[in-house]
Amino acid sequence: MVYNFGAGPAMLPRPVMEQIQREFLNYQNSGVSLIEMGHREERFTSILYEVDHLFRALTSLPDNYKLLYMHGGAQMQFSAIPLNLIKRKPAKKAGYILSGNFSEVAYQEAQRYGEIDICGSSKSQNYAHLPRVSHETLNRAYSYIYLTGNNTVYGTQWHSFPEVGDIPLVMDATSEILSRKLDYSQFGVVFAGAQKNLGPSGLSLVAVRDDLIGYDLAETPKLLSYQLNDQHHSQVNTTNTFAVYVMKLVLQWIKSQGGVDALEKENRKKAKHLYKRIDQTDFYRGFSCKKDRSMMNVTFNLPTDDLLKRFLIEADSNGLFALKGHRVVGGVRASIYNAMPYEGVKVLSDFMDEFERKNG
Amino acid sequence: MVYNFGAGPAMLPRPVMEQIQREFLNYQNSGVSLIEMGHREERFTSILYEVDHLFRALTSLPDNYKLLYMHGGAQMQFSAIPLNLIKRKPAKKAGYILSGNFSEVAYQEAQRYGEIDICGSSKSQNYAHLPRVSHETLNRAYSYIYLTGNNTVYGTQWHSFPEVGDIPLVMDATSEILSRKLDYSQFGVVFAGAQKNLGPSGLSLVAVRDDLIGYDLAETPKLLSYQLNDQHHSQVNTTNTFAVYVMKLVLQWIKSQGGVDALEKENRKKAKHLYKRIDQTDFYRGFSCKKDRSMMNVTFNLPTDDLLKRFLIEADSNGLFALKGHRVVGGVRASIYNAMPYEGVKVLSDFMDEFERKNG
Repeated sequence: MVYNFGAGPAMLPRPVMEQIQREFLNYQNSGVSLIEMGHREERFTSILYEVDHLFRALTSLPDNYKLLYMHGGAQMQFSAIPLNLIKRKPAKKAGYILSGNFSEVAYQEAQRYGEIDICGSSKSQNYAHLPRVSHETLNRAYSYIYLTGNNTVYGTQWHSFPEVGDIPLVMDATSEILSRKLDYSQFGVVFAGAQKNLGPSGLSLVAVRDDLIGYDLAETPKLLSYQLNDQHHSQVNTTNTFAVYVMKLVLQWIKSQGGVDALEKENRKKAKHLYKRIDQTDFYRGFSCKKDRSMMNVTFNLPTDDLLKRFLIEADSNGLFALKGHRVVGGVRASIYNAMPYEGVKVLSDFMDEFERKNG
Repeated sequence: MVYNFGAGPAMLPRPVMEQIQREFLNYQNSGVSLIEMGHREERFTSILYEVDHLFRALTSLPDNYKLLYMHGGAQMQFSAIPLNLIKRKPAKKAGYILSGNFSEVAYQEAQRYGEIDICGSSKSQNYAHLPRVSHETLNRAYSYIYLTGNNTVYGTQWHSFPEVGDIPLVMDATSEILSRKLDYSQFGVVFAGAQKNLGPSGLSLVAVRDDLIGYDLAETPKLLSYQLNDQHHSQVNTTNTFAVYVMKLVLQWIKSQGGVDALEKENRKKAKHLYKRIDQTDFYRGFSCKKDRSMMNVTFNLPTDDLLKRFLIEADSNGLFALKGHRVVGGVRASIYNAMPYEGVKVLSDFMDEFERKNG
């Protein structure tokens, strides 16, 4: 038994993986594989409808939000967001809240298409905590305000969201989607690359409020248009059928676990267990400030580079995989998305005890 | 035993499918699945290098061509081609050769980014044959000339390519890549969506001559930039790791079959067998004109709509799947890509004999 703490593409629920394998050569007795099946065949389009239905039920998504399944992961949305929203107000302005490298990358990309302001940044503190955003400084002419919900690299997460009035708030929820209860009506757009909590890489899910659709720029590539994707139920061309199919299985698994509420409870328990272990002694040092700690990515370091190196090697040989922190931060990062069982967190924390006993 | 004649996502070689299934839960004894593995882990990046190597070896791709693996299938390239090439000449002009609906869609998309001429079209003949292109009418100020190599919907294919002088020729090779020997040095860019001859949907492969890289427009989304993808070995963000992995297995399978030469021979034999059967009597009528017939998609019709309907139903119940023609053309379409064995074509032609005997 191994536990995969990789930040993404990340581990998926075991029953999902087993089902994919079981029916891989013969999907529902069709005689062919799901990946060999036309994307306009009823057997596949029914999967798309089921994903819609499951996601809406699991999130209580309000009826005035559309669901889109688009090519290319979250970074394709870094372009798609301004390409679809910046024209909403004539000034073509937007505000970006910088809480980590992915919000920086999104901010840089958005500058191709409009005038982008920084509405808060904790860069000078190496993103160890979330930035302060003052409602008074926000420009009402913004087409939208952008933030990253969970900062995978640093291990920080918004536990309450900044007040932005009636400016649509856009959230990159890649590394936290479906991990906690969320009131979608707070947001204009919530999007997520699939490869952490939803399925394999190469696809993004976009939940967009319907009044925000229809502001494409002239230069918006057709496959990046929310309007066109909405009109064609995300089948403007051949969608990533395998990823959509896996997403369906993951959503079914979430439902079978008791839904998002149950997962959130489990995720809180997992994160609490690990943070408690970190804080227990001075041997391990958490990277992010306590009040902004992420439930999804737990980051910490060891007293010396040498100990860190040995920690990672020994963890790996004990079946605790992919714990190396992102190169920007270093140290250790345990990504504990929905699919990571509590048992995996306990094994890691026991290993941390043992490692400290030997080296502390 | 069933045979899947779907136009795409299409059947893949059986040994490839079996290997995916076999190692799905435990890739190369890593303890985790390929789809759960980080895209920057050596186990995955080595796959990318192997795909490069195999594709270059199989195609004798000249050294001055770069290989890119990009999100989104061929239609994402309909945008990416002008977004990367139209600025090559100051006039921002290009010429499109219309040989079917996909070239039309590409032509419409290109108009967002420049001034696009039609350099030949057989639309008024319902694309039953390829258009004439006269070298003298081509504008030397074009940044490129665009064509679709094989027209999936109609069943036509260029058996020799129009003479375009030193204007770079761009080919959409989605439904024919690696099915026949091709001199890549005739082209500036050859691209293909993966879901016919390469793997599952959601990815495109782009072979681009290196002197054509670096002409991005200011509005080119980062993930659609050839330059950026080239600089990052197509890992600007998380690539579609599953599709790249399957592509590797498909390329290995092609190599094991004797390479592209051997497949071309087999493909010619398959197509010849089917066209011979069609031409044998007047019962079946080929759609496309004989000299432009495709080796990949064989299109024909039956004497009446009622017979067509029965043909498709009976074929399906005999394990001959997905033979329904595209809605634009109607009739029957047998897609016989690399993975379709000669045996499948024989079974289909025997079925056609039998059906004619009963209904002719």
